[in-house]
Amino acid sequence: MTDTWVNSAERIGADLHLELSGPGSRRAALTRALREAVRSGRLAPGTRLPPYRSLAADLGVARNTVADAYAELVAEGWLTARQGSGTRVAAGPATAPSGQGARPGQRHRQPRTPVPLPPRAHGPRHNLRQGTPDASSFPRTAWTASYRRALQAAPSEAFGPGDPAGRPELRQALTEYLARARGVRTEPDRIVICSGFAHALRLLFDRGTREGPAAGGVLRGPLGVEAYGLGFHRELFAAAGVRTVPLPLDEHGARVDALGRERAVLLTPAHQFPTGGPLHPERRAAVIDWARTRGAVVLEDDYDGEFRYDRRPVGALQGLDPERVIHVGSVSKSLSPALRLGWMVLPQRYVGPVLAAKGEREAWASVLDQLALADFVTCGAYDRHVRRMRQQYRRRRDRLVAALAARAPHVEVTGIAAGLHAVLRLPPGTERSTVKAARWQGVALDGLAAFRHPQAPTTAGDGLVVGYATPSEHAYEAALEALCEVLPPE
Amino acid sequence: MTDTWVNSAERIGADLHLELSGPGSRRAALTRALREAVRSGRLAPGTRLPPYRSLAADLGVARNTVADAYAELVAEGWLTARQGSGTRVAAGPATAPSGQGARPGQRHRQPRTPVPLPPRAHGPRHNLRQGTPDASSFPRTAWTASYRRALQAAPSEAFGPGDPAGRPELRQALTEYLARARGVRTEPDRIVICSGFAHALRLLFDRGTREGPAAGGVLRGPLGVEAYGLGFHRELFAAAGVRTVPLPLDEHGARVDALGRERAVLLTPAHQFPTGGPLHPERRAAVIDWARTRGAVVLEDDYDGEFRYDRRPVGALQGLDPERVIHVGSVSKSLSPALRLGWMVLPQRYVGPVLAAKGEREAWASVLDQLALADFVTCGAYDRHVRRMRQQYRRRRDRLVAALAARAPHVEVTGIAAGLHAVLRLPPGTERSTVKAARWQGVALDGLAAFRHPQAPTTAGDGLVVGYATPSEHAYEAALEALCEVLPPE
Repeated sequence: MTDTWVNSAERIGADLHLELSGPGSRRAALTRALREAVRSGRLAPGTRLPPYRSLAADLGVARNTVADAYAELVAEGWLTARQGSGTRVAAGPATAPSGQGARPGQRHRQPRTPVPLPPRAHGPRHNLRQGTPDASSFPRTAWTASYRRALQAAPSEAFGPGDPAGRPELRQALTEYLARARGVRTEPDRIVICSGFAHALRLLFDRGTREGPAAGGVLRGPLGVEAYGLGFHRELFAAAGVRTVPLPLDEHGARVDALGRERAVLLTPAHQFPTGGPLHPERRAAVIDWARTRGAVVLEDDYDGEFRYDRRPVGALQGLDPERVIHVGSVSKSLSPALRLGWMVLPQRYVGPVLAAKGEREAWASVLDQLALADFVTCGAYDRHVRRMRQQYRRRRDRLVAALAARAPHVEVTGIAAGLHAVLRLPPGTERSTVKAARWQGVALDGLAAFRHPQAPTTAGDGLVVGYATPSEHAYEAALEALCEVLPPE
Repeated sequence: MTDTWVNSAERIGADLHLELSGPGSRRAALTRALREAVRSGRLAPGTRLPPYRSLAADLGVARNTVADAYAELVAEGWLTARQGSGTRVAAGPATAPSGQGARPGQRHRQPRTPVPLPPRAHGPRHNLRQGTPDASSFPRTAWTASYRRALQAAPSEAFGPGDPAGRPELRQALTEYLARARGVRTEPDRIVICSGFAHALRLLFDRGTREGPAAGGVLRGPLGVEAYGLGFHRELFAAAGVRTVPLPLDEHGARVDALGRERAVLLTPAHQFPTGGPLHPERRAAVIDWARTRGAVVLEDDYDGEFRYDRRPVGALQGLDPERVIHVGSVSKSLSPALRLGWMVLPQRYVGPVLAAKGEREAWASVLDQLALADFVTCGAYDRHVRRMRQQYRRRRDRLVAALAARAPHVEVTGIAAGLHAVLRLPPGTERSTVKAARWQGVALDGLAAFRHPQAPTTAGDGLVVGYATPSEHAYEAALEALCEVLPPE
């Protein structure tokens, strides 16, 4: 360890470019400059620093300023101070986040050049994957106005720890909105706010703390699911140790008569995801009967219930029996997935356990966004936005149907005129190659097979799931053209 | 089943108060009114509804309007339609969320009177529990201005599905802020945004999906922890199956020399929580050495690093070795726990696994609040707020110390002048009765014992953890008086 610094304080200001600039006091600036000099390797480990007096004189600062800066850096571990040996640069701190790749002995001479991460993959040219609304249609002005109003009106306690049930303003607004728009029957005290559908599933099925009230999860399996659905949800269930039993699908929706000893069933009654039909009225009644008889519960995933284009949406299944259905919705399709806000409408007996699973305080959903959404719903802006998007998506769907009729009349669009996606039937055996061809052409979409439960007893055949809401308005025409290009010939 | 409805359409409008009012079309209004009549029990199960024609004439609407309304309610399961038997009220739907308590045969006569939930418990009169900033000091105006600016400037894709790493604007802003204010060395690509500290712990330790890349968790136990800490965190570890090994605490902080074969250690180096001392510089260096030698990692909980009142805060431990420390912070103490925003600054090798644990899209932290925070930090409003609160909390701490000096000079305030809480030493054997007495007097606070690890090898003695930031400014004086009242005599 060589003593490279024998009272040559000048070098600090000169060679080492010690500049006392930037915000804060002289002491803060000196501390920063010294820290940077050690970090960058300009001050090598073991280097002895000049006495306070010398450096203070050199830099034109008080002696205490230097003493404080040294003490600071000793406390942080950059410098060491030992009686009789003065203040030195500590041995060994890595120089930079990229230090792990440098060879020993070399690192202190290298300037800080972080290893660049590989750039994130660019998106496809045409995004027709299901699941997201048109991001360019987010109602920025109306939403910001609601946010501002809500924050101005909020009581102080709203900025403290949040109630895990969610803000009362939002639960009240949702109670009224869901009754009016979706036929949901509830009260604010039976609504629990969450970050979206996946969060709701976690709250219901995760095993929770070993000793907490939610030990073992609020719900248990086996869980009936539709033979086609989101693989992401199946992964969540697998992670929670919940066995899923796929129900066959036919033209009336899920075959709920296949339900037996399951403890719960997850359904998309308004618009089966992704195959696209509504659950037949008799099956709606039958699944409620099953739940009552078995003491089971129906999980209603109302993921796009607001968007039906041919008629008024079918009301929520929850309305048939609020004590047998857990109704889950979110703003992810209707407004934006960037907000991370959803809701669970719960039977009375699950309110306590779900709140226990959520914890003592709101740990997830932004309370300020909750306040804004409450205002947005109450002032009618949410209805206006949904109406506007309904028209826009309806036109999108019409354009998809028209494009296919003109350019690929043998490809049928199935399912009801609803939601943000459509299913295109393909000739048997052509799905896989079509999805592949689409990828090659920069068209992102999924085949039906991607949604099939591995143990599904039946198959829905070959088909494409086309999300027509995702592209922005100006990009949609080109996306449709690209789609028609990759469809298999008759 | 009696046929109570033989073409007496008039009763719908009269006895049943069918009013076609409210928003939307006549059909929508009729559907709503009929649904409500069934729900409330005014139309009993089995009741036959009048033919379209009669009801249409009675209400002055088109016949199709009635036909559509009936079809809607059949689809929802409220009504049944069978060839030759007309349209009838379906059997069996429960009448209201409160229906489960009603005796059979009685429920249709009962008006909808939901069982009221027990009112939420009222808070204590004086809240001196640690952990939350003064909610009444939230900078509503500046924050709303940032929110508005950020939403106006945001690209459209910001309103689509979010990058699980977090918004680039925020990661950039934090990279600069944390370097400046906390001595953290990182790049935006090594920051992952989360909902707060507990979320970070879940991302690091939860076992994740069985087959996902995070199977088994990003980090494993056994995990060294400080002998005193948040019980909530210990519960999280227990739920994740992570064994915790308590490290003794002395006047220099955690005894990191007790670390052995642990895979990771969780520390609060700037300000031990809750006992209140900083980690000694030699121990800072020692724990980094341990992590390097063992291939282990240090979790730095920088929960209140911005708030030090006697001197400049000690820089983050992370600065000593960014490849051996995971630095976790949030706005929960500095701004508000209602925002649900935090960050993890990760060694390179953990970035991929943490993102894999988080999932393909941002499922938690509000992307819009992220944008707002990026603006808030970049424009300097965050610094201004922290400065303002630092002064306020410092005054609060001074007032606490002064009140004790005047009224209970035998009760010592320990720990450094920092953070949002102080520890009051109590005579041996008096902690439990003091906490109890405080509760009786409406003063919420915790004793040190509430934070002790069950297997802690040592005890920190009797003491109270007093959160002096929680009360609003006008309530603080009364809270201090109430506190002094319950302290044990000399």
